[in-house]
Amino acid sequence: VIDRGMDERRRIEMLARLLAAEAEDVELGIGDDAAVLAMGSEKLVWTIDEQVEGVHFRRGWLGWSDVGWRSTMAAASDLAAMGALAWCGLASIVLPEDVDDRALEAIGRGQQEASKQLGAPIVGGNLSRGPAFCVSTTFLGRCARPILRSGARAGDGVWLSGRVGLAAAGLKALEQGRADDARLAEAVAVWRRPHARVSDGRTMALVAHAAIDVSDGLARDAGHIADASGVCIVLDEGTLLDERGLRESADALGASAVELALHGGEDYALVAASDVPIPGFRRIGEMRAGRGIILRTASSERAVEPLGFDHFG
Amino acid sequence: VIDRGMDERRRIEMLARLLAAEAEDVELGIGDDAAVLAMGSEKLVWTIDEQVEGVHFRRGWLGWSDVGWRSTMAAASDLAAMGALAWCGLASIVLPEDVDDRALEAIGRGQQEASKQLGAPIVGGNLSRGPAFCVSTTFLGRCARPILRSGARAGDGVWLSGRVGLAAAGLKALEQGRADDARLAEAVAVWRRPHARVSDGRTMALVAHAAIDVSDGLARDAGHIADASGVCIVLDEGTLLDERGLRESADALGASAVELALHGGEDYALVAASDVPIPGFRRIGEMRAGRGIILRTASSERAVEPLGFDHFG
Repeated sequence: VIDRGMDERRRIEMLARLLAAEAEDVELGIGDDAAVLAMGSEKLVWTIDEQVEGVHFRRGWLGWSDVGWRSTMAAASDLAAMGALAWCGLASIVLPEDVDDRALEAIGRGQQEASKQLGAPIVGGNLSRGPAFCVSTTFLGRCARPILRSGARAGDGVWLSGRVGLAAAGLKALEQGRADDARLAEAVAVWRRPHARVSDGRTMALVAHAAIDVSDGLARDAGHIADASGVCIVLDEGTLLDERGLRESADALGASAVELALHGGEDYALVAASDVPIPGFRRIGEMRAGRGIILRTASSERAVEPLGFDHFG
Repeated sequence: VIDRGMDERRRIEMLARLLAAEAEDVELGIGDDAAVLAMGSEKLVWTIDEQVEGVHFRRGWLGWSDVGWRSTMAAASDLAAMGALAWCGLASIVLPEDVDDRALEAIGRGQQEASKQLGAPIVGGNLSRGPAFCVSTTFLGRCARPILRSGARAGDGVWLSGRVGLAAAGLKALEQGRADDARLAEAVAVWRRPHARVSDGRTMALVAHAAIDVSDGLARDAGHIADASGVCIVLDEGTLLDERGLRESADALGASAVELALHGGEDYALVAASDVPIPGFRRIGEMRAGRGIILRTASSERAVEPLGFDHFG
């Protein structure tokens, strides 16, 4: 019998079953964007993210300083999704022989730039040899009340901060060797230098019932809110297409703008459920009773599969 | 000009220069066993460690559950070195295609066993595809007063909890394909299943002036205390050789027991500087004015190079 393996979600569930344990002051373990720890009246929000050469990026698609920047922002984005202020981080870097000291310095400079932008320094880490470049970045954040994936209610609006689909267009452009195409320049830049929306997360946390960041694609990540909250999420196609640069990039690639918006990852936009408007966010749909994700046009509705990036799919 | 590259220490110093930043409640950044954060009157101690297949271990040398156990204990050992209580951890796993679900479950079981032993659950993490197996484990610990590498004084005794050299003998046995040699069985077991000495670290923290855990070899790690504290560390050869199992393992390997004790890593013993005895620790030497590491016999003294494991040496 050939074991086809489990998808990412079932693998995480397996590990969560093995590792589940009660511990003092641990309020939330495996299964959300970050773990939540209690420290007096304050909460600590704690996450780890990995960037692997050949999986998350290829050399030539970006500079080493971009690798440092992206790895830092991607990790911090989970704090934004919980509504936490970024406090500080650690980074563990695995260096193959062919990543030289100049490259390592550029990685450090990218981490420095990103952590300055976040106001959260990298305060330690680890260096190791290895056959392939990887960097694990872990961040601690602080907040009074973390926003989870669960908690959305039927009737809530779906609110978006940032853009969805453009980073995926940039990635496609790089995969196709079209980084020099002026029509795709913005998309490539967005993919290379994403921003963790920590400040928008702080605003969102004042009113949101649930939230997540879009790392694996809007349909997939919004699907996590739908699952955890037990609601159906209706997305309005028009609002997704009404995004600066998305249709132009899709046209240049011969791709579908709506597919990019629904299934493209690595934008690190924030999606929140709220019954009141959130400053800096735009409304892209609503929650209703039911399950799953629905795409709504002026004349029709269709169910959307929670496709998107799955390391083991 | 061929760039020969920097050694591990200089690479870390380069990153530390780039990333150094003041931040609220960050008391200690890059350069010790762990970062130290202030949270009210309590300190958080925070570390990350990496295990990479082909660098830290090879398949066949140990089971996947041992990989889970070792990675957890190696990370927690930095908390022991600071005198902190282990609170909880995150683990980011990079899985190549040929590590199947059964192996992943075994890794999780090893993490579970180690974290139960530590009383510190794994509360989150990350799963990613990649060309080579790696696991990054980050732990948070708590204490009132972390013990740093600096702070040792001339006149302090050098105190050891645990054994040094035996894990390196076990590793040599595995490298030589001699895991079945009964005379090396204990050494192999010690290498496969190290213990973070968290409880001894708590005791040590009541009186110690400085401390470190022995991951890269006694001479190298004690050398970090000597450097950071500005003292010379004198080790008594007799006390190092008077260790259960060390000479027998060295003889079976045709290796030097004293070389194993001085330069063998991955024992995760604790070395502390204290002017009073530490319960559970034995005295292996003393600090005096000066620099570096000296090995003393009944009749002579010699300087010891801070050899040991260096990923970039």
